[in-house]
Amino acid sequence: MTRENKKNLPLMPVPDELAVTVLGPAKINSPLLICGDDGTAETLCLDSFIDDESRVLVDIGPLGWEAIRQGQTPDSFEEAGARRRIYFDPSKVRAAILTAGGLCPGINDVIRSLVMTLHYRYGVNNIQGVKYGYQGLSPEYGHELVPLTAESVSNIHEFGGTILGSSRGGQSTEDMVDSLERLNLNILFCIGGDGTLKGAHAIALEAAARGLKLGVVGVPKTIDNDISLVSRSFGFETAVSIASEVIRSAHTEAKGAPNGVGLVKLMGRDSGFIAATAALSQSEANYVLIPEIDFDLEGPGGLLDHMEKRLSSRGHAVIVVAEGAGQKFFAGADEKRDASGNILHQDIGAFLAGVIRARFKARKLELNLKYIDPSYIIRSAPANASDRVYCGSLGQRAAHAAMAGKTDLLIGLCNDHFVHVPIAQVIRERKKVEPAGVLWNSVLEVTGQPSLTNRSGLPGA
Amino acid sequence: MTRENKKNLPLMPVPDELAVTVLGPAKINSPLLICGDDGTAETLCLDSFIDDESRVLVDIGPLGWEAIRQGQTPDSFEEAGARRRIYFDPSKVRAAILTAGGLCPGINDVIRSLVMTLHYRYGVNNIQGVKYGYQGLSPEYGHELVPLTAESVSNIHEFGGTILGSSRGGQSTEDMVDSLERLNLNILFCIGGDGTLKGAHAIALEAAARGLKLGVVGVPKTIDNDISLVSRSFGFETAVSIASEVIRSAHTEAKGAPNGVGLVKLMGRDSGFIAATAALSQSEANYVLIPEIDFDLEGPGGLLDHMEKRLSSRGHAVIVVAEGAGQKFFAGADEKRDASGNILHQDIGAFLAGVIRARFKARKLELNLKYIDPSYIIRSAPANASDRVYCGSLGQRAAHAAMAGKTDLLIGLCNDHFVHVPIAQVIRERKKVEPAGVLWNSVLEVTGQPSLTNRSGLPGA
Amino acid sequence: MTRENKKNLPLMPVPDELAVTVLGPAKINSPLLICGDDGTAETLCLDSFIDDESRVLVDIGPLGWEAIRQGQTPDSFEEAGARRRIYFDPSKVRAAILTAGGLCPGINDVIRSLVMTLHYRYGVNNIQGVKYGYQGLSPEYGHELVPLTAESVSNIHEFGGTILGSSRGGQSTEDMVDSLERLNLNILFCIGGDGTLKGAHAIALEAAARGLKLGVVGVPKTIDNDISLVSRSFGFETAVSIASEVIRSAHTEAKGAPNGVGLVKLMGRDSGFIAATAALSQSEANYVLIPEIDFDLEGPGGLLDHMEKRLSSRGHAVIVVAEGAGQKFFAGADEKRDASGNILHQDIGAFLAGVIRARFKARKLELNLKYIDPSYIIRSAPANASDRVYCGSLGQRAAHAAMAGKTDLLIGLCNDHFVHVPIAQVIRERKKVEPAGVLWNSVLEVTGQPSLTNRSGLPGA
Amino acid sequence: MTRENKKNLPLMPVPDELAVTVLGPAKINSPLLICGDDGTAETLCLDSFIDDESRVLVDIGPLGWEAIRQGQTPDSFEEAGARRRIYFDPSKVRAAILTAGGLCPGINDVIRSLVMTLHYRYGVNNIQGVKYGYQGLSPEYGHELVPLTAESVSNIHEFGGTILGSSRGGQSTEDMVDSLERLNLNILFCIGGDGTLKGAHAIALEAAARGLKLGVVGVPKTIDNDISLVSRSFGFETAVSIASEVIRSAHTEAKGAPNGVGLVKLMGRDSGFIAATAALSQSEANYVLIPEIDFDLEGPGGLLDHMEKRLSSRGHAVIVVAEGAGQKFFAGADEKRDASGNILHQDIGAFLAGVIRARFKARKLELNLKYIDPSYIIRSAPANASDRVYCGSLGQRAAHAAMAGKTDLLIGLCNDHFVHVPIAQVIRERKKVEPAGVLWNSVLEVTGQPSLTNRSGLPGA
Repeated sequence: MTRENKKNLPLMPVPDELAVTVLGPAKINSPLLICGDDGTAETLCLDSFIDDESRVLVDIGPLGWEAIRQGQTPDSFEEAGARRRIYFDPSKVRAAILTAGGLCPGINDVIRSLVMTLHYRYGVNNIQGVKYGYQGLSPEYGHELVPLTAESVSNIHEFGGTILGSSRGGQSTEDMVDSLERLNLNILFCIGGDGTLKGAHAIALEAAARGLKLGVVGVPKTIDNDISLVSRSFGFETAVSIASEVIRSAHTEAKGAPNGVGLVKLMGRDSGFIAATAALSQSEANYVLIPEIDFDLEGPGGLLDHMEKRLSSRGHAVIVVAEGAGQKFFAGADEKRDASGNILHQDIGAFLAGVIRARFKARKLELNLKYIDPSYIIRSAPANASDRVYCGSLGQRAAHAAMAGKTDLLIGLCNDHFVHVPIAQVIRERKKVEPAGVLWNSVLEVTGQPSLTNRSGLPGA
Repeated sequence: MTRENKKNLPLMPVPDELAVTVLGPAKINSPLLICGDDGTAETLCLDSFIDDESRVLVDIGPLGWEAIRQGQTPDSFEEAGARRRIYFDPSKVRAAILTAGGLCPGINDVIRSLVMTLHYRYGVNNIQGVKYGYQGLSPEYGHELVPLTAESVSNIHEFGGTILGSSRGGQSTEDMVDSLERLNLNILFCIGGDGTLKGAHAIALEAAARGLKLGVVGVPKTIDNDISLVSRSFGFETAVSIASEVIRSAHTEAKGAPNGVGLVKLMGRDSGFIAATAALSQSEANYVLIPEIDFDLEGPGGLLDHMEKRLSSRGHAVIVVAEGAGQKFFAGADEKRDASGNILHQDIGAFLAGVIRARFKARKLELNLKYIDPSYIIRSAPANASDRVYCGSLGQRAAHAAMAGKTDLLIGLCNDHFVHVPIAQVIRERKKVEPAGVLWNSVLEVTGQPSLTNRSGLPGA
Repeated sequence: MTRENKKNLPLMPVPDELAVTVLGPAKINSPLLICGDDGTAETLCLDSFIDDESRVLVDIGPLGWEAIRQGQTPDSFEEAGARRRIYFDPSKVRAAILTAGGLCPGINDVIRSLVMTLHYRYGVNNIQGVKYGYQGLSPEYGHELVPLTAESVSNIHEFGGTILGSSRGGQSTEDMVDSLERLNLNILFCIGGDGTLKGAHAIALEAAARGLKLGVVGVPKTIDNDISLVSRSFGFETAVSIASEVIRSAHTEAKGAPNGVGLVKLMGRDSGFIAATAALSQSEANYVLIPEIDFDLEGPGGLLDHMEKRLSSRGHAVIVVAEGAGQKFFAGADEKRDASGNILHQDIGAFLAGVIRARFKARKLELNLKYIDPSYIIRSAPANASDRVYCGSLGQRAAHAAMAGKTDLLIGLCNDHFVHVPIAQVIRERKKVEPAGVLWNSVLEVTGQPSLTNRSGLPGA
Repeated sequence: MTRENKKNLPLMPVPDELAVTVLGPAKINSPLLICGDDGTAETLCLDSFIDDESRVLVDIGPLGWEAIRQGQTPDSFEEAGARRRIYFDPSKVRAAILTAGGLCPGINDVIRSLVMTLHYRYGVNNIQGVKYGYQGLSPEYGHELVPLTAESVSNIHEFGGTILGSSRGGQSTEDMVDSLERLNLNILFCIGGDGTLKGAHAIALEAAARGLKLGVVGVPKTIDNDISLVSRSFGFETAVSIASEVIRSAHTEAKGAPNGVGLVKLMGRDSGFIAATAALSQSEANYVLIPEIDFDLEGPGGLLDHMEKRLSSRGHAVIVVAEGAGQKFFAGADEKRDASGNILHQDIGAFLAGVIRARFKARKLELNLKYIDPSYIIRSAPANASDRVYCGSLGQRAAHAAMAGKTDLLIGLCNDHFVHVPIAQVIRERKKVEPAGVLWNSVLEVTGQPSLTNRSGLPGA
């Protein structure tokens, strides 16, 4: 976490695809004064700037070591942080912030940090909020920009959601870049997930093609924590913390009735990080079902048989299912997509509840199944303290990157260091829970859950 | 966070002082069955064992890269995790767990995870709790061992504190090793801070000298997050989260009265991590005073003048002070130490309150100062979800290390990877907030606080 | 709340139907020693016994005053509390506790208080828990009694749900009284709602018919707060507190998207107390729909038109609907009942979500509706501090009533005084939100919601 | 809680000292339209007005019944609520709100409810906030009034404290009434405790003497719940809820060390309601010390001997002490008063900690005492849901009373009904915990604490 001032750093080789795009050379000195909240402070910037030469290795184990030793170019990211020399003249910056996609704890914290850093650290006074995501850059919706000031954002972190509103789905890149030109904006911060970042990348390319000096900086938002190359997405810890309490509720309900079953559906369209991590934090879950791990319902190895045995011996069971799990059961059903282009999954929670009820009814066994879907309660929560600190760091670093003239990148966290990640690298694929990895293995240890499939053989064997 | 199965890893060079001590070669296969909570599950161990060759680089920036390239032996730690081959026969393990030092959120979670992993993963059935820290290993106190089972620990994570009790201060190493021999214990887990780890190291050395096959594994506990080589200590996030709310209280009190001042004393004997991080999470703090950063009270650059100006312009102020800050003001006072050997600091919070009150009284200015010391409220809290997950991981890995016959080490977190750290490396020095580092710089940005000293010149210049 | 020792109270007339049944004259002195937690305390009972003559007036306004003045017999309840003389010899008491119906915050607190009071105050050592409600008194289920001790219940208030398990539906009264006879139980505490209390009344009558000296004391449990003659049911405040946070979530979601609608379904089968009170505590609700108040969907006065107008002017809306509201829309659908005999309502929440979505789709208007059903999260929560105190009081008084030989009654709260209410009085009808009353009027003031019907004329006019 | 429309109520006799003062006859019809939040609603006022004849009996037991029967004038209060006819023309109202004394959860909720009710229910558009209590009415401080609107107060209930600021101590009544005249205010709401209410009474008398038509309505604020004739003061439940968690912290600390003692000082200058109620909600307290109950430290019956015995048998102890307890130990020390005129108590918490430490040191016994003073954390908390509802009700009724031309009164709660209480009745004496009452008796039952005095004889005997 801590870092010294690194002078005369050696020049590490930079893999082409991990090189950061810049709008031009940074020729302006970063401000050395931080103005206090009351205008009276004469706070001095510390000599803690980050050099562009400071990079962070991606593979930090023996394979990485061997690659370096053999003279190969190892993957590395540019370290994020304030630069001694910046590209934009703060007095001429006209920055905009937009938030898109589903809600997630901490969005307001990122907005607040962006505004505070631009204002107090750099003296930027022209910061605009874009309403309802990319809709706000599309003239047809007629949303006005919302001026953002240090005062207007000072309390917003106390509230969940986003003060700017959000929307799903993209708009015409040309229209949006037209708007950005017309509004004379030179920095655009995009807080959003996969779809939003694709949009940001398209805007950055289009702006470059037009010769616009527009900085586009992303702050990745996905409550599912499934952004590749980003070890922790903001809001994830808050989400796990609430999900954990909901699993406790399900356990209480399950124990409170004969043959009680608590069934909790958690977020996780393509990856089961929330379900798996929440199960670790609240060790009452007996079955964790996630998109990455196949499972059967029927048959001797399937969930239903195992659960029936468990109920007869223990009297209750808790199932945690990620929304994207078990989609094979819906094969043949029509595929739908939401406005962001995400495949809309069939409701595995309701489906499971129905299947389990039918099974116990057929067997004439008492069943008390309680189904809980806490998604919107989780998504709309304010960030907890850890996410507040994290969001603050992301916002600061995004502001620093933009002021330094860097573009088409997002702020990531790699091996516990904040880094600059070219957006194009991130949107290629989603991060997944690895079936043979430590996280899933811990879940198996904590739940004692078997393979839940009718296939023979050991997983990983 | 995730990791693949690493086969045929290259042999990285191991720095002597970071090599892990082992009791002997691991010749027993690790169990492949995980028994479910209900005894019915036939869960299979996944092929996700960690090889001893898997090591984690410490310096992962350009300097580290350059060192490797030049053929130097870089600092690295052995990665923690389950081993395919273990040293102890589970049926013959007689493990003990002890907790020492001040309370900290998550101790019970670590105890629970140790017991659950030893029991469900390895089938160990003989696990004892040592009462009241090292007192429990000293015959003169007469504390009995407490048998720990999966059932007896199943709910303990819902409660703060430690079910085993704790104490400060060491006992005779000889007496303790005598007890361990007499009790026929072959694994000892020590959950504690600097003093506790020193004791564990001494026990490991004495046991080795006696030729005892005793595994000693530490789980570092310090609410201050000041253990060197460990990037995050358990309980720290919970502590920050509560501290953050207390700062909000102080802010509310400060704004609720004319010339209101909220003064919060937080933990941090030698390092200001809690104070600094809590100030970042709750941006209402105006002054953050920590042990690592000098400050003056009197004089034109001192706290009192600045605060008086702030009160006259803004009407309120919030001060966050770490308990070890400003000890220069007590020079000449008698030095006291607690039973653990820690220097007992003078109460900087009460001292500051007195100085500020006197100043305003002398100036005949109204002052409404509210002093809050939430230390015991924070220390005794149950772990939040994030710390629960973290404590679970620490406990699992400590159990794996012990079963593999590793000793005289603790479980650390380095560049976001769990690692084995020889205890001797850790107890040499404490981790500090770096004055020119990113954390402190962020605090300055968020608070707008000036240097608060009468020295001329820029910090870091 | 406070009360003096009332000596020589005048003999108020007792309305026949409000007279309490007793098993026989109370001839034993209540113990004067309270044993401390550690067995060492010699605490003395205070002279604060309640006399049977102490009664509480029901109508305490001018009509009540006029009735008394004219010599009529006013409604009044016997005050609850410890009696100087008791009926049962503590050493011979064999008490049982059962919990039935849906979960509700505070059940464990009542169990704990009953056990603690019986044990520490009276020295009763034989207390049994009945598993899974009335199932546990029916031999066919084979549930064993669970011995309850001061130690075994000491921490249960930290957990939601009921340690005894619950079930819905009654069992044969004869079978249950047979069991009670066979088990030699002489006091039965029934914690449950309407159905449970009916069962308790039937048991009391059957026991009396058989000449058994069996005391049956109820503690009314209904999260809906709809027990007539009981001004506050335990768990209600906790429920409102969580519901309040969920309404805030719905508001955040609603504001976070264009034409956002947050729809929250709360408990309230026949009465809307939770919905109405939660709406008061969290003033973001725009529409509150409860069983007691008719509303239309279509037409110029209906919900849909009004909401469409609101969305076009304000951009978002929050709807809170009690589960029993709007049942007229399901007329013709088959009526179902749960095992307790309660009418199973059609899901008004899902129905409303569908109708609103269809309406906006038909109008080609964007709509972002988020539907939240937090019922099980609320039901399974641990009691908050206020409910803990209240549950403690209920349990103490229920134990006092039973020891004094009173039977076929429950502990109620009337005009802020704890009282003895004959069960037969309570199960006649449910408490409702009065359309012209203060509570509903406050909801209208806070939400600004119109009549939402197409009928002409003013309500109440 | 609910109430019907009471027509043709009989005329109950009104005790002189409980009669409410009015500015003049109410001749204006109350508005029948409630404007919705969005200006579009056509909400109709319900026919749920309260008649002035509606009064609430104070003694509702046999003694009250006997008194009525014998034709005596029983104590009764006028019921609070909206009147069909009001005194003030809403378009001419110029209302002010002030908050004084220490912080308490819920102040902002009361402010918000006053503003919302005046604005939405009555159409009042001129509402001013007075800064820093009575200082804001004294010209010498130069505080400006703060205009309050529905929009500016819409979120303030999310924050603790008071947006208006507060101060202790009175100002010259003449000066303040001069200000009120000059500012042309005709309604003044005073939210505060004993001292504040005395000030409000003086203002009401002075205004009457000057012939001003100034309505003065109080909302009693005392976190201690010690206002006589008011059964529950706002913020009290929130305070108990936080205090309860702090007692749990103290218990965790006490159990975490050999001879651990957790000592918690709670608010309660003259009465021990918070300490007693919190101890009931969190049954871990072993000793509860309050101002109303004498106790000794030394001697065979004193606290120290009993505690030493308890520690040797149980190993830990939890003491809850109200700030005003044990003042006899400071006899002879100088008496100090705060700016409100309250006697400033010596710090009983620090005193007890010192005495206990000295005792154990003298006996050479290990002692681990942790002292927690959570006062400001409690005072500054936002109101919980129950207090939010309660504060909303108080604010509504205060607004109704003022609009109806009633003055020199406050809103109280009597036998669970909201009532109008003449201020003069309230400020005569403080409410106390009765030594022989139900509350204290419950505390003794729950803690098992003995008399802790060296006096012989039974209390209450």
